[in-house]
Amino acid sequence: MERPEPPILPSVLSGDTADIYFLRTRQVMERAGLNPRASMEFFPARDGLLCGMREVVALLKQVLPRDAEVWGLEEGETMSRKETVLRITAPYQSYGIYETALAGFLAQESGWATAARECVNAAEGVPIISFGARHVHPNVAAAMDYAAVVGGCLSCSSLEGARLASVAAAGTMPHSLIICFGDTVAAALAFDEHLPADVPRTVLVDTFHDEAEESLRVAEAMRERLQGVRLDTPGERGGVTSDLVKEVRARLDLAGFPRVQIFVSGGVTPERIVKMRQEGAPIDGYGVGSYITSSPPIDFTADIHEIEGCPVAKRGRIPGITLNPRLKRLL
Amino acid sequence: MERPEPPILPSVLSGDTADIYFLRTRQVMERAGLNPRASMEFFPARDGLLCGMREVVALLKQVLPRDAEVWGLEEGETMSRKETVLRITAPYQSYGIYETALAGFLAQESGWATAARECVNAAEGVPIISFGARHVHPNVAAAMDYAAVVGGCLSCSSLEGARLASVAAAGTMPHSLIICFGDTVAAALAFDEHLPADVPRTVLVDTFHDEAEESLRVAEAMRERLQGVRLDTPGERGGVTSDLVKEVRARLDLAGFPRVQIFVSGGVTPERIVKMRQEGAPIDGYGVGSYITSSPPIDFTADIHEIEGCPVAKRGRIPGITLNPRLKRLL
Amino acid sequence: MERPEPPILPSVLSGDTADIYFLRTRQVMERAGLNPRASMEFFPARDGLLCGMREVVALLKQVLPRDAEVWGLEEGETMSRKETVLRITAPYQSYGIYETALAGFLAQESGWATAARECVNAAEGVPIISFGARHVHPNVAAAMDYAAVVGGCLSCSSLEGARLASVAAAGTMPHSLIICFGDTVAAALAFDEHLPADVPRTVLVDTFHDEAEESLRVAEAMRERLQGVRLDTPGERGGVTSDLVKEVRARLDLAGFPRVQIFVSGGVTPERIVKMRQEGAPIDGYGVGSYITSSPPIDFTADIHEIEGCPVAKRGRIPGITLNPRLKRLL
Amino acid sequence: MERPEPPILPSVLSGDTADIYFLRTRQVMERAGLNPRASMEFFPARDGLLCGMREVVALLKQVLPRDAEVWGLEEGETMSRKETVLRITAPYQSYGIYETALAGFLAQESGWATAARECVNAAEGVPIISFGARHVHPNVAAAMDYAAVVGGCLSCSSLEGARLASVAAAGTMPHSLIICFGDTVAAALAFDEHLPADVPRTVLVDTFHDEAEESLRVAEAMRERLQGVRLDTPGERGGVTSDLVKEVRARLDLAGFPRVQIFVSGGVTPERIVKMRQEGAPIDGYGVGSYITSSPPIDFTADIHEIEGCPVAKRGRIPGITLNPRLKRLL
Amino acid sequence: MERPEPPILPSVLSGDTADIYFLRTRQVMERAGLNPRASMEFFPARDGLLCGMREVVALLKQVLPRDAEVWGLEEGETMSRKETVLRITAPYQSYGIYETALAGFLAQESGWATAARECVNAAEGVPIISFGARHVHPNVAAAMDYAAVVGGCLSCSSLEGARLASVAAAGTMPHSLIICFGDTVAAALAFDEHLPADVPRTVLVDTFHDEAEESLRVAEAMRERLQGVRLDTPGERGGVTSDLVKEVRARLDLAGFPRVQIFVSGGVTPERIVKMRQEGAPIDGYGVGSYITSSPPIDFTADIHEIEGCPVAKRGRIPGITLNPRLKRLL
Amino acid sequence: MERPEPPILPSVLSGDTADIYFLRTRQVMERAGLNPRASMEFFPARDGLLCGMREVVALLKQVLPRDAEVWGLEEGETMSRKETVLRITAPYQSYGIYETALAGFLAQESGWATAARECVNAAEGVPIISFGARHVHPNVAAAMDYAAVVGGCLSCSSLEGARLASVAAAGTMPHSLIICFGDTVAAALAFDEHLPADVPRTVLVDTFHDEAEESLRVAEAMRERLQGVRLDTPGERGGVTSDLVKEVRARLDLAGFPRVQIFVSGGVTPERIVKMRQEGAPIDGYGVGSYITSSPPIDFTADIHEIEGCPVAKRGRIPGITLNPRLKRLL
Repeated sequence: MERPEPPILPSVLSGDTADIYFLRTRQVMERAGLNPRASMEFFPARDGLLCGMREVVALLKQVLPRDAEVWGLEEGETMSRKETVLRITAPYQSYGIYETALAGFLAQESGWATAARECVNAAEGVPIISFGARHVHPNVAAAMDYAAVVGGCLSCSSLEGARLASVAAAGTMPHSLIICFGDTVAAALAFDEHLPADVPRTVLVDTFHDEAEESLRVAEAMRERLQGVRLDTPGERGGVTSDLVKEVRARLDLAGFPRVQIFVSGGVTPERIVKMRQEGAPIDGYGVGSYITSSPPIDFTADIHEIEGCPVAKRGRIPGITLNPRLKRLL
Repeated sequence: MERPEPPILPSVLSGDTADIYFLRTRQVMERAGLNPRASMEFFPARDGLLCGMREVVALLKQVLPRDAEVWGLEEGETMSRKETVLRITAPYQSYGIYETALAGFLAQESGWATAARECVNAAEGVPIISFGARHVHPNVAAAMDYAAVVGGCLSCSSLEGARLASVAAAGTMPHSLIICFGDTVAAALAFDEHLPADVPRTVLVDTFHDEAEESLRVAEAMRERLQGVRLDTPGERGGVTSDLVKEVRARLDLAGFPRVQIFVSGGVTPERIVKMRQEGAPIDGYGVGSYITSSPPIDFTADIHEIEGCPVAKRGRIPGITLNPRLKRLL
Repeated sequence: MERPEPPILPSVLSGDTADIYFLRTRQVMERAGLNPRASMEFFPARDGLLCGMREVVALLKQVLPRDAEVWGLEEGETMSRKETVLRITAPYQSYGIYETALAGFLAQESGWATAARECVNAAEGVPIISFGARHVHPNVAAAMDYAAVVGGCLSCSSLEGARLASVAAAGTMPHSLIICFGDTVAAALAFDEHLPADVPRTVLVDTFHDEAEESLRVAEAMRERLQGVRLDTPGERGGVTSDLVKEVRARLDLAGFPRVQIFVSGGVTPERIVKMRQEGAPIDGYGVGSYITSSPPIDFTADIHEIEGCPVAKRGRIPGITLNPRLKRLL
Repeated sequence: MERPEPPILPSVLSGDTADIYFLRTRQVMERAGLNPRASMEFFPARDGLLCGMREVVALLKQVLPRDAEVWGLEEGETMSRKETVLRITAPYQSYGIYETALAGFLAQESGWATAARECVNAAEGVPIISFGARHVHPNVAAAMDYAAVVGGCLSCSSLEGARLASVAAAGTMPHSLIICFGDTVAAALAFDEHLPADVPRTVLVDTFHDEAEESLRVAEAMRERLQGVRLDTPGERGGVTSDLVKEVRARLDLAGFPRVQIFVSGGVTPERIVKMRQEGAPIDGYGVGSYITSSPPIDFTADIHEIEGCPVAKRGRIPGITLNPRLKRLL
Repeated sequence: MERPEPPILPSVLSGDTADIYFLRTRQVMERAGLNPRASMEFFPARDGLLCGMREVVALLKQVLPRDAEVWGLEEGETMSRKETVLRITAPYQSYGIYETALAGFLAQESGWATAARECVNAAEGVPIISFGARHVHPNVAAAMDYAAVVGGCLSCSSLEGARLASVAAAGTMPHSLIICFGDTVAAALAFDEHLPADVPRTVLVDTFHDEAEESLRVAEAMRERLQGVRLDTPGERGGVTSDLVKEVRARLDLAGFPRVQIFVSGGVTPERIVKMRQEGAPIDGYGVGSYITSSPPIDFTADIHEIEGCPVAKRGRIPGITLNPRLKRLL
Repeated sequence: MERPEPPILPSVLSGDTADIYFLRTRQVMERAGLNPRASMEFFPARDGLLCGMREVVALLKQVLPRDAEVWGLEEGETMSRKETVLRITAPYQSYGIYETALAGFLAQESGWATAARECVNAAEGVPIISFGARHVHPNVAAAMDYAAVVGGCLSCSSLEGARLASVAAAGTMPHSLIICFGDTVAAALAFDEHLPADVPRTVLVDTFHDEAEESLRVAEAMRERLQGVRLDTPGERGGVTSDLVKEVRARLDLAGFPRVQIFVSGGVTPERIVKMRQEGAPIDGYGVGSYITSSPPIDFTADIHEIEGCPVAKRGRIPGITLNPRLKRLL
């Protein structure tokens, strides 16, 4: 499915989100009549998965003159520490004030995508849904969910993130629904009654009773319409353990519900995924939130390496264009 | 200075950034004719500085009915792990879909503000400027800078962040300016010539020559108009060390420039601030970027504790309103 | 209450449990016509609480001649590493073969008593019951429980241990009872109906349902006759946490049962007791098993320091009686 | 050699060593007229060597009705954490009160046997004798020595332990013998003179003189009648080191006694055995005490999994008989 | 007692031990006709005790012209990391080639003196003798022993070192003496017979027999002429332990030799001194060797800070004379 | 090239540097008329490279009688912990007092050679020059440099050390030269003008300007006569990093000086050599100082193993000649 072009906020285009020294630089150079054709390169501070390039290109497309060149890696490619992943060659004044935004797109989205990829790798094929929208500022919830899907998540929970990533949003039901209905079975039956058929019937089973007990009550009530249960046991009750998953599986099987799936959420990390897999917990899917959202950005550095075709660099960098055969012409 | 009311993006108000299960919950309850007056409480997963409440209130003001009640701590107050910091009492359907956004405002901004506060505490009075806009998605650059100022930073580098926080944006000059001019002194003199008098003349001195040498060259050229130098030595040259700062100070003093200030940026953390202070480095200001931007969100949990005045709670939580005498009526 | 004299098994008195080399030594010395009056001293390998002295004295009383002297510390006194805690002066042949048994009484019982004391100290006044009979060989279950009471436990679970220690045995009910009845409430009511009034009505509440839910069900059924609930949550459900205790307390209070007490068992250690106390968990008593039973014995060394009044010692020990003003004449 | 059936103490059979709550359960169920046929399973808390099954069977044989079934692993087999090693199916009242004793037999003896096995594995064929009777309560000295032999020890020092394990008890001589004689050589000669020819002439050589010196004196005095020397150097003299063993071996060889063996005791652990083997210390046998006796019990859990043929289990366990093809019918 | 002026080897004065680049520098500057008056400062790389200044002054006295100035700390003073401890102001050519030797004197002797001081501090008044001559090249054995005495040792074992430090050399007897005599008592008696009365009769007691035994044999043989015993137990016998010292003390006292002193050598370090003191070992003196000789040199850096009265410095150092009020005029 | 026989100082030959107890032993044995033919063996306390044997042989040649035998390993061979590397058989009085000096030669030189070898191994073919003369007492500067060459260094900086090792001394220029000239280029040109053609033109480039800048200035001035630059960046400027080396290389290449070599000094250790190699730093040579000079001596122990042909040994050693087929007859 074709992904829509990501929107760029007006405040970004206007330079309002830029570091003020870039705005001042623009002013000084304008008044000094200086606007050399400059090549600027971006590299990351650590290994990871590159994400944010679609927004980078969307922004540059709107601001660069016709004779500019942009080379880079593509969305979702792996990258190494200090590897050049983006090179812009154009009159400096045409893009100088966007250094802040360009580095920002890449830094935060690459951080999220890289963390998502770690979970996906750990799960070895078991699907993962991005559940972290509640841990980030809503202005970037969609970008975060999009990056998680670029990192390999099957889907995500925010509507707008799913739209950006061209997937169907996923989720089960919140504790609030159950608490408003006052009973898990009642809430599950209402959910089943009122929602379209294509919404999966996955019921949250840790609200009022022990998970194993609640799973059986729900399964008895919904029978073959129940597609899965979600275990989200709070830390106060020890969190979800492999033993709990195995027991719920065993009790469901014993009661004749071998096709009801088990989803797990709450504090899921790559380490816990690996541990549960090694312990043989029969899990059909994970919801991952804070592991992805708490991953720090992968900081990017931008350096000018050529001015009007002459190699140049500040101390600590090597003058001249940095060779990287992986780069493709993007603009 | 009065801070402007923070804007709420239309996609947040429309619920497009919400987790899809809240939208489904709204649908189920609507069709089931259920809309109880519910009290929802929010608590953080660790100690910190609360930030994001102004956006919380700005959003709730637009969506809650007249008879709703909102109690909470105020922007910038300290909070403890598991302490109730926000309580909404209103018909559930009026605010249920905003749980994602409300938790998100608080999580990410409290994470940033708390990290900023750690730096501020470490610096014991030496001013700190937030320099991290380039490490976050531009859609939240302003929110991040705002949170850093709430955490105690004197100022920040993004224009929009400064506006939100009602401070004057701060910054010096980028390496790009100097590279475009081809020489630090030339760039400094142009900067001085073309910018208004109220822009501080602080020159970046690690681009082409050794910092001590460059500092002296700039001071000789600008003399009493030079307000400060910024050391941003790259890791490839060992980063900024206390010894370097002391030597630059000593050489400036020896050459007759005791009033030129020294600012330090690049990899600054509370630990490094404390170390440099203990080593006696004569620093007049810090620019802090990635320490603040790489701080993970402080996750928030939201629970319903009362339905139509009756205590209730899911397993793991204690039913009924949680007593917290620190809360004030916000709406 | 006066404690009964501890019984000594016939196989111990006969020397059948001794190391064979002591039996051979007896034979060699007998045939060589050697039986000097010898002073033997015992010291522990680490600090701790001395226990086992009552059995030591009970055994020596049966075997030593009238002119023997026995000096020692008393049951339950603290002792230091390498401190002389027992000295026997008598013809060597009268007690030589009992070195194995004497050291054994002291080693294992001091180990248990010392571990119990650590728990008691950690609990700062909250009562502790020894629950470890199931982790030791039944031939020493009573000795273990006795030592735990010497170490400060309020009571113990084995009948014979309680008899030795002159306390009333304590315990609640096993999961088996509840499983046989098929329901916690049914088992609790039968327990209440069929047992004498002086048996405390403390009900185990983690067998079939969530602890908080089960506690409320039992409390509603037994009302003021319910004295307490015991939380013994298995590791598969996360074990007992402070948050769980607090929540059960809160829910019981909310439902009008503030006088129902909460007992905790399962993996209790001094560290966990301290942690739960610091976290403010409202616990009325602990059952401690494996922490006490898995404590290693405190090994004792026995050395002859005088032969017929002359100082002597093997290499590594100091010849002559070791001065210790804390010793009292025991025989 | 056929091992004798282990005796069960009357206080165990009477239930006096049981946890009191089992006695109360018996009373409640009796009065309530409840005695279902129940299947109880036992599993260990960690991997190890199973020991104590002979006492388990000896006890159950005396108490179970004819139609009972007992399945289990056999004495000395390896077992894994959480593996079912014993299953009893019988009317609950016929065995309920013995849960404490059954778990106790297995816990402590498996702990000892497992530790012994670690030493035996480390020694790679060099014989090990259990020397720990002095570190345990004499009531279990025989059980401990028996378990050590099940774990692979060649023999043990207590007479009764050797009897249970159907081996000849082993040992050399105590320091007391030498101190009573006042000289190692004098004691050795008396030992040689007065004991039957089948008792090995192994002399302890660290009492009065340096071990190397004492070994030579004893060898010169006893010549070809000397079978070995035992080094038991106290910690105050640095304990036994590989270099000491090598030197004693070299000095004995140099003096013409290449057939005199060297035994080592005192603080021997698997780690030290491996280290000495790697350092090439020519050791002919080890005496191991506290490593075995200080090993914690391997706790066992007992759960009912079937009541009258129906699967059942408490929370945290999986209902129904646990499949384990390794189990054999024992009764 | 006045210490003799330390001799400077001819090869040092001739520059043969200098780094060749100083000899080349001399040649270049001579031919270029350059010989500015330069101030050179020396500072250490870590805290410590300054030693070697007497050789520094002895060398400079021979080479500097009359108008030179030398300021410095004095032999044996404490110094801090990076503190200026020596400043030479003179025509550069008069001392330039000696930079190697001057730094070398200070580096190695300060290293030794500092290590000696750590032992002396640990011993809290118990005398320490430097015994390390055998671990250093004989060309610096005297310098090492001298530095140890500057660091606080009471004496040292090398004749020439004692001469430099103006103390009487100290030592007991080597194992070789005893082995040549074939018996410790025989060697001790010969030692007593043939040496002047002022040589202390301290006998080494670990050569052939156990230390405690040998001590008693020697004491019985020499009686009141015995001043002390030295314990030098090899690692193969566990080294010297507090328990061994206590036992030897007790056995000597018991036998009527309370005035015989106990000296300890072999692997003595500040940590072991502190440990033995805390364990109450009654030690009358320590011999320390490898702790002192294995201490690394405290590297010194030499920098020119003034040329013909003008402040100057290489990058990384601060131009101009470094203020240090602790310096005294030495030449 | 044949190495000259190392000189032995008169004070060593006279015994003035010996431990005084050897001098006393000589006196006692002389007066007692004792001078047995004794075999003394030396072994090291840890693995390493043997060095100092040439001085050992040079000394023994001057003192041993004709019928003496000396067996040993050769200079520069590897040795194992506790391996016999030297055996002297001769009348004890002929060499007894030299035990201190013999052990001292071996201890300190083996320590240095072993450390040098570690650097050489790490560098995998890149040459290493010993630069540590300034960190040792000048009396052993030559011996240290000699040992470093035995350990594999290509050359060393001290004239006398180079003579002993039969290599040409190596070095570049000190900071002092540059500071006296006031400019690196001026100093470099004078160096070039005034020194013979066979002295390599390697210029130190971190004195006044950034290393990359200074390298280019020097290269431009000396052009093809410049053989190399030395980076010795002080810790205050972050020390030499791989990135710095790479950048200097790139800037030199870019400016047309691909044949100018890069040497690195300052805090070089095997770990840093390996790290820089793995990071791909293009280094042409290392100067190593303090890693070699701060290596502790490898202590040697000397024991008599035979007296007049009879095996003997002190406690802890094995009597008789120790078999070592690697030994060769040296005298």
